[in-house]
Amino acid sequence: MLLGIDLGGTNIKAGICDARGRVLASDSIPTEAHRGPADTLRRMAELGRRLAGRRRIGACGVGVPGPLDLARTRIYVAPNLEGWKDVRVPAVLRRLLGVPVVMENDANCAAVGESRAWPPCDGFALYTLGTGVGGGIVLNGELWVGASGAAGELGHMTVDPHGPRCGCGRCGCLEAFASATAVARAAGRPAHEAFRSRDPKSRAAVARAAWALGAGIANLIHVFHPDLVVLAGGMARAGRAILDPVRAEVRRRVFAVQLAKIRIELSRLGDDAGWTGAALWAARKHRPH
Amino acid sequence: MLLGIDLGGTNIKAGICDARGRVLASDSIPTEAHRGPADTLRRMAELGRRLAGRRRIGACGVGVPGPLDLARTRIYVAPNLEGWKDVRVPAVLRRLLGVPVVMENDANCAAVGESRAWPPCDGFALYTLGTGVGGGIVLNGELWVGASGAAGELGHMTVDPHGPRCGCGRCGCLEAFASATAVARAAGRPAHEAFRSRDPKSRAAVARAAWALGAGIANLIHVFHPDLVVLAGGMARAGRAILDPVRAEVRRRVFAVQLAKIRIELSRLGDDAGWTGAALWAARKHRPH
Repeated sequence: MLLGIDLGGTNIKAGICDARGRVLASDSIPTEAHRGPADTLRRMAELGRRLAGRRRIGACGVGVPGPLDLARTRIYVAPNLEGWKDVRVPAVLRRLLGVPVVMENDANCAAVGESRAWPPCDGFALYTLGTGVGGGIVLNGELWVGASGAAGELGHMTVDPHGPRCGCGRCGCLEAFASATAVARAAGRPAHEAFRSRDPKSRAAVARAAWALGAGIANLIHVFHPDLVVLAGGMARAGRAILDPVRAEVRRRVFAVQLAKIRIELSRLGDDAGWTGAALWAARKHRPH
Repeated sequence: MLLGIDLGGTNIKAGICDARGRVLASDSIPTEAHRGPADTLRRMAELGRRLAGRRRIGACGVGVPGPLDLARTRIYVAPNLEGWKDVRVPAVLRRLLGVPVVMENDANCAAVGESRAWPPCDGFALYTLGTGVGGGIVLNGELWVGASGAAGELGHMTVDPHGPRCGCGRCGCLEAFASATAVARAAGRPAHEAFRSRDPKSRAAVARAAWALGAGIANLIHVFHPDLVVLAGGMARAGRAILDPVRAEVRRRVFAVQLAKIRIELSRLGDDAGWTGAALWAARKHRPH
């Protein structure tokens, strides 16, 4: 049995699954990051123990926001976890839980989780469309973190160098067009409302986000052509309202031979992708083959 | 012993190497594509036989321009090989040479060849800067062709959607900024002269090409962060005049954690990358492990 934990800025989701990702139990609690890392980590461990009950846990995976060190021993700093700096999440959890703990970027965990919910393929990419735009890449069944551990930053691909400034300081990142924050700012109302609204500002904001996502995905196809691209996160709940214009934009931007072999779909796992992916990735890292 | 052949629009380069890519013999002849595929293929086989001499050839790899079918049995159409359409290159060469023949895109072959000239790494990307901009990606020592067989089209990443029209019909592809053709057009003189010239038009053309290459490489780093990116092809002969401004642009566009782990270098093999890569890839495909 595996324990997976998804540490978000607002909530902590956790659950128990087996080695194939089948969910046996899951729950969530508020993060309350302002109470400090020690308090939050203690409550994460408590949640994990409660969910495990009498089951024996072989490994724990934890998905966390923000940049990690290459060895995945600490969070340097997390914009959504106020006051967290240089926190050794796996070491603390290992002590509290008494099991091996593997930490990974939250969007990477979601990519691992989501990829297992689809038929196996060589190349898989996930876009998490939330407050920011995250990403994860799974190649030949393995999470791809690249030379720095920071590959899969799909939200920071420049799609238009003349575009709006991104939180990262550069101009025209995909995130600056297609995050819920960017859509809400352009629409003048929350992103989930913008997708339903018929007012011109909302429609323009949604069209711009879909254009940027289509451009980013097309670039991804030119570079490494995954078999499957999945859209996840809060914005993916807009369903066909986001999926259809994104597909149309990709169609305009890739070669016919590429178009014949690309699937773009909505997340199957939703909120469960992150913690199940963390759990499965922990099993993979703990028992390398 | 392996035979490698690089079929270009102007010349055919070929050579004999061993399983580690050591060159034993090499030569080149004019392509004369206008004489038709049958004539050119016959002369390719003659060249191969002459280079092989009494050596026993285990496999032949051939790098060709233009889009290939997924099974690599034919060239659909090649813009630089006038009148070539639906040509079954490997079948014809196999008959003429009596050895297994593996065909692959020329830039992909160059990526395989070039990657073997550097210390092994997980992620490797090659840009071929010539008449067009080609690319190839090697992951964990294996050529990555993606779901369609057409991954690694690094020249068709959009770096500026408001940019000039590319030969592919879309706007702002890297190729539309950074090919020798694009540099020559913007500079009003051949690309190799533009790199040496101090006239403002030439300097602007070179700066624009370097900007676009830097933007494309930065996007590649955000997506899959290779350990090593190599610039090859005619334009790479400009040396530091292209390498330095490209490195500077990448520095401006990626995260510090990524920058610490990226190398951008000039080709070590030059013109030998294509045919040696074809030969090595043939050995790999012919004897899969």
